[in-house]
Amino acid sequence: MPEPDAPLSAEGLEAALREVGATRYHNLHPFHKLLHSGQLDRDQVRAWALNRYCYQSAIPRKDAALMARCDDRELRREWLHRITDHDGTGGDSGGIERWLVLTDGLGLDRDYVVSKEGALPATKFAVEAYVRFVAEHSLLEAVASSLTELFAPGIHAERISGMLAHYDFINETVVAYFRRRLDQAPKDADFALDYVKRHARTAEQQRAVIRALTFKTEVLWAQLDALYFAYVAPGWPAPGAWRPGVAVGGA
Amino acid sequence: MPEPDAPLSAEGLEAALREVGATRYHNLHPFHKLLHSGQLDRDQVRAWALNRYCYQSAIPRKDAALMARCDDRELRREWLHRITDHDGTGGDSGGIERWLVLTDGLGLDRDYVVSKEGALPATKFAVEAYVRFVAEHSLLEAVASSLTELFAPGIHAERISGMLAHYDFINETVVAYFRRRLDQAPKDADFALDYVKRHARTAEQQRAVIRALTFKTEVLWAQLDALYFAYVAPGWPAPGAWRPGVAVGGA
Repeated sequence: MPEPDAPLSAEGLEAALREVGATRYHNLHPFHKLLHSGQLDRDQVRAWALNRYCYQSAIPRKDAALMARCDDRELRREWLHRITDHDGTGGDSGGIERWLVLTDGLGLDRDYVVSKEGALPATKFAVEAYVRFVAEHSLLEAVASSLTELFAPGIHAERISGMLAHYDFINETVVAYFRRRLDQAPKDADFALDYVKRHARTAEQQRAVIRALTFKTEVLWAQLDALYFAYVAPGWPAPGAWRPGVAVGGA
Repeated sequence: MPEPDAPLSAEGLEAALREVGATRYHNLHPFHKLLHSGQLDRDQVRAWALNRYCYQSAIPRKDAALMARCDDRELRREWLHRITDHDGTGGDSGGIERWLVLTDGLGLDRDYVVSKEGALPATKFAVEAYVRFVAEHSLLEAVASSLTELFAPGIHAERISGMLAHYDFINETVVAYFRRRLDQAPKDADFALDYVKRHARTAEQQRAVIRALTFKTEVLWAQLDALYFAYVAPGWPAPGAWRPGVAVGGA
């Protein structure tokens, strides 16, 4: 790919970032299509929820890693609510708890889910790659890697309507996580997009933020690849990973 | 799994470690069986060599990460040759160069291989998880994670004979990497096994080394899962990854 010599305009950069989403976001993945169109069985939805827990539960560590290297008090003040959105604060039990309500509703043992013992190694590798990316790259790239939130409302809306319509084991209680994210994600995405447009001034910085967002789409895509491979076709969970029919969870 | 209250004998620990290999080492993976039995086409072997380069080329970083936190001069002196085995020293060009002779022989552009641009994200996530494991866990666990070398001579011998017998694009020059590892791996494995047997005295330490070796088998297994998924069935390389027929490599 030829690299531009001159920086893009802020609008040009936004268009380039949206193009990454249009071509690489995991709403394009066959596993997502199967999930929201009701073509998975209950065990396959369980596998998804069990594995995706690893990602959800890592988000506060990821955001703390970003804040740990951010010397800008205003940015830290803005960023903080991402941690409490997931960990909860005061009367709000938080997004991770809402995810566990989903796994409860699917009949998975909560201790087993939280232990991550049954999650696919590929899931854990992808999730930890994301935490490490944020800890090790520039603050600008760390912020940019959150920009998949730009594309999240569409996927959440598709999941809510699709899963409620197609699965008798999914109800309003268990989709509470996604309902909440419909409000939260756009505000976060707007802030991060504005930040990136203001701070990525040079062509080099702009390439770095596009690479950061591309990396993040790879993290999400790899998780659905692993689920498809293990639980759809050929259906080979790695040794030690949760297996449909063997146990709903627990020792 | 019930956890033992009393530590195993050194022989009992060795047996437990060998059991991890017997049940989880990637010689059991269907992709390995396809590779050494001649059932892959040239593009599938290319995909394997291109991706496996990520692993090979990370080994010296992994070993440097171990040495970076090792205060035992004798252990550092012993460990050092693992870096030079791969990076080369003096007249020996090293294992990474021998791996590039393999990818050259397969018609892959060397710069493209070295850039890792076409490698699967899942490969890179797994490889970097290994480097990070060694950097972040105890020295004992870091040494234990190298113990997959115990099982390597079998897989290397199988690859050499199988690939030479079945693929007309494989010859003695390009299997030089594996021939050399037949000598190197057993010495390394014997040293690491002896170290682990002497230093893992408590039941807790023994569980940690068994977990470390299990983790390492997951790193290797996940790489073959990703190759199978992307290049055998269903044959879906992640967006941006190398695609058979599109290009042999290069921009």
